[in-house]
Amino acid sequence: MVEVHKKNSMAEISMENLLRIFTVPEAPGSTLNRLDTDISANLAGFLQEHIVAEEADLVKIEQDFNDTRVPEDPVFVSEHTEFLLDKVVAQSVHTSSPSFVGHMTSALPYFMIPLSKIMIALNQNLVKTETSKAFTPLERQVLGMLHRLTYGESTEFYDTWLHHGRKRLGAFCSGGTVANITALWTARNRAFGPDGDFPGINHSGIFGAMRHYGCEGAAVLVSDRGHYSLSKSADVLGIGRENLIAIETDSCNRICLDALERKIEELKQQRIRPFALVGIAGTTETGNIDPLDKMADIAEAHGLHFHVDAAWGGPTLFSNRYRPLLKGIERADSVTIDAHKQLYVPMGVGLVLFRDPSMLESIEHHAQYIIRQGSKDLGSTTLEGSRPGMAMLVHAGLKIISRRGYAMLIENGIELARRFADRIATLDDFELVSEPELNIFTYRWVPAEVQARLREADAGLRHQINEVLSRITQTLQKEQRERGKAFVSRTRLTPECYDQQAITVFRVVLANPLTTDEVLREVIEEQRELAAEMYDNADMQALRALLAQA
Amino acid sequence: MVEVHKKNSMAEISMENLLRIFTVPEAPGSTLNRLDTDISANLAGFLQEHIVAEEADLVKIEQDFNDTRVPEDPVFVSEHTEFLLDKVVAQSVHTSSPSFVGHMTSALPYFMIPLSKIMIALNQNLVKTETSKAFTPLERQVLGMLHRLTYGESTEFYDTWLHHGRKRLGAFCSGGTVANITALWTARNRAFGPDGDFPGINHSGIFGAMRHYGCEGAAVLVSDRGHYSLSKSADVLGIGRENLIAIETDSCNRICLDALERKIEELKQQRIRPFALVGIAGTTETGNIDPLDKMADIAEAHGLHFHVDAAWGGPTLFSNRYRPLLKGIERADSVTIDAHKQLYVPMGVGLVLFRDPSMLESIEHHAQYIIRQGSKDLGSTTLEGSRPGMAMLVHAGLKIISRRGYAMLIENGIELARRFADRIATLDDFELVSEPELNIFTYRWVPAEVQARLREADAGLRHQINEVLSRITQTLQKEQRERGKAFVSRTRLTPECYDQQAITVFRVVLANPLTTDEVLREVIEEQRELAAEMYDNADMQALRALLAQA
Repeated sequence: MVEVHKKNSMAEISMENLLRIFTVPEAPGSTLNRLDTDISANLAGFLQEHIVAEEADLVKIEQDFNDTRVPEDPVFVSEHTEFLLDKVVAQSVHTSSPSFVGHMTSALPYFMIPLSKIMIALNQNLVKTETSKAFTPLERQVLGMLHRLTYGESTEFYDTWLHHGRKRLGAFCSGGTVANITALWTARNRAFGPDGDFPGINHSGIFGAMRHYGCEGAAVLVSDRGHYSLSKSADVLGIGRENLIAIETDSCNRICLDALERKIEELKQQRIRPFALVGIAGTTETGNIDPLDKMADIAEAHGLHFHVDAAWGGPTLFSNRYRPLLKGIERADSVTIDAHKQLYVPMGVGLVLFRDPSMLESIEHHAQYIIRQGSKDLGSTTLEGSRPGMAMLVHAGLKIISRRGYAMLIENGIELARRFADRIATLDDFELVSEPELNIFTYRWVPAEVQARLREADAGLRHQINEVLSRITQTLQKEQRERGKAFVSRTRLTPECYDQQAITVFRVVLANPLTTDEVLREVIEEQRELAAEMYDNADMQALRALLAQA
Repeated sequence: MVEVHKKNSMAEISMENLLRIFTVPEAPGSTLNRLDTDISANLAGFLQEHIVAEEADLVKIEQDFNDTRVPEDPVFVSEHTEFLLDKVVAQSVHTSSPSFVGHMTSALPYFMIPLSKIMIALNQNLVKTETSKAFTPLERQVLGMLHRLTYGESTEFYDTWLHHGRKRLGAFCSGGTVANITALWTARNRAFGPDGDFPGINHSGIFGAMRHYGCEGAAVLVSDRGHYSLSKSADVLGIGRENLIAIETDSCNRICLDALERKIEELKQQRIRPFALVGIAGTTETGNIDPLDKMADIAEAHGLHFHVDAAWGGPTLFSNRYRPLLKGIERADSVTIDAHKQLYVPMGVGLVLFRDPSMLESIEHHAQYIIRQGSKDLGSTTLEGSRPGMAMLVHAGLKIISRRGYAMLIENGIELARRFADRIATLDDFELVSEPELNIFTYRWVPAEVQARLREADAGLRHQINEVLSRITQTLQKEQRERGKAFVSRTRLTPECYDQQAITVFRVVLANPLTTDEVLREVIEEQRELAAEMYDNADMQALRALLAQA
């Protein structure tokens, strides 16, 4: 049906042919339907392989994507599909592989694929009800479900606010970054709102607000484990990255409350007004959870907006067993949850919830042609404008996996992490660097004799050994990635036991129920092999020299 | 394969069953594959109907989305699919209908649906190459193609910068709003960058920047036809909505250059520093194009960042016939183009291009665990973090529709608008309010005798008649929408011929090649019928009374 173009044949581009590609194919046996089946088969083949990525150099792949001229002549859909399967699918990263345990890119329940077709084909636009009809109440229901999971308000509360014309329980967005920006934007606008003659920061900007309120600056506080999107938010929102104040963390990567309170006082003395405090429920690097309840006390005492970045850890709330870890989240003014992480929905959807359905009014906006005053259009309180109906997939996950299913996925991940961390602690040649609180932990390769020396060595030598180990960890991580069988990421931490020296570590993120103890054992085994193969490498030689010197 | 849950049967939730839903179904005849086929058939049925929306009250629809408890027990995928087809698909807006001519939600070439499956199933994350491999060079190629279309730099230029580690030709994002924010964020950070001891606005925030640079504020200039996302950007970026300066437009909805220059001088005298000028290529309400070339002169003379919001009109560049309308766009520092508008890609993708590949460095950011310094990761210069591989669909459109195909779509739309506007101008009972320059125009229902009276009446009476006509237009627009056969949007304009009085008008947006002269004739015919049916309505009576009075 769609094979309307003959390649390089000018005569074949016609309006008639163009109309056809916009027309729904009627015959079930049409070329397009056959293509659809072929794509499914090919994807199934790709997804069934447990290889993380085919070994191919990025520079080599770039050669297939070098031409910057928009082609004058069309190609057949079938021809382009072949190109995609050959040059794109085959060169993708198998993010759903059980041995892909390095980034927060989760596996996908297979039913998401056919259901996504509904979303794509309907092409609704959530900015307003005129282009989304049933999708608008559906999105509000999902916000309501996650609001209730987080805040547990009464049925009456939800009956009143769920579909309210002027209020919103939260905002859907393309991901956690936009969710965090939306939360801090709201907090900023509420902290420096209209006051007497002053029309508010949204109207007058930061410069006017600081002068009106007699401040020398505005600050947001978060632990030094805060996600980089928060620093980006501080830049975007005009607060400045230096006013995203990073508070030191304890040995469990949790914010130090004393340091936090000291800093708040210090800022106030400098007439810099702290307006928001961010707690983390699942730090990106180590998966730890801040003492949210105590942070809520501090936020309350100082009149700060309390935001919880639960992009990763939010779905822990599904588990009755682990929900207590997040105690205090129900006191947050706003909470970020990423749906494309532990809600197992395809890439491109996060959300921010607000305890008080009036809070989003501080960023409300209208236009004559859409999102008019008083309409139920969700676009009046989102940072983004036109938005796809991704809420439909979150909704499907909640119905098809259900609360108990998500709880089981969460519990499985945490317990797998615990078992594996315990195992690493028993190994001679590996060292656990951060304990798992959720389903993330860090470790590194350190042979037994090096571990012994590290304990005895003076600060200078310990520093040198750690430097070499960091380079080795980096090489091991890259080598393993290039082999393509498994993927573990790496980051740099400053553990107390090494006098806050920055060391490079492997970071394991478990977000695939198909990942087993066995898979993780193989990951370690491969790293051990790689280390053995690196025997003659310069860093290994340097390491041996340092040991001999000691 | 996926029918792992028995409804309401606790015993059926097990880890084993959960694992299954994450496993690729092997049998081609699996339940999930059958479901997939059913969904396709149902969607084809829905899409083949040319009805815009089933008549159903939003409040009634909301009843299907009232429960805010996350279900304890799972439902079958098949059961949920049935719910979706019944309660969501059937209650959606048929945005691809040829008689949906009211919003910037375009039709979808059918091949986008099977190809989207590839994107969804691979679930790549464009924030970094480790989770996107081939998708990263692919996205860069698309940026390169649209950069070349816009700026036409040399082959050597693209060979140098297309896949460069530190430079970017632009940024993909979820839509035009984020694209505009990204452009103005970049402009802001460049205008108030590091200077001597001052580390830059990104670091110190706006308050510090204003003090260092000795300004009383920072401003962005745009015509009063600017999209609401610009005002939202001014709020988000901390500039303040009052510092998004709206310049008056002429009778063709184009920015008045004299007024612009006067305003720049005025701001400078107030020590408010204008740092960006926004030109519009396709105003949202009327589809007009600012005098971009002359605006580029003014931007150059005053050292302003020149941004062009071509979210709608950008693809006009494909047409050699109409490309001259955008003359001067090649002098812009940055350009926004929405892919989910006239590139006919599914909802959720826009982009911003930068003439100079170094500009995005002003918003660059890094983290230890991803987007490290020197990596090719696209995430270091985007507002968003994790992002889906939507670029793959833009790429597919460019290959399968090709430059000439897009040109034909653009030309068809503009010429259809022209013919239809000409026709309205000849009708007794309708009045053309804004002429189409691209494929958007506005008009209203005004019977011949009212038109005559409007010409003769004094200012007071004219004002009264227009007020009544506005109410009637609003009712007609709502009635037509509720009938569900066609959808035209409405907005409020302040035409010169009515002494800048705000009047409500119908707004036609043509973004579907299946829309024909005949379809538009029927839209008008239905409005005429609705007006006749409204004969006894209070506003119609008021209109007659006003005529009698004159």
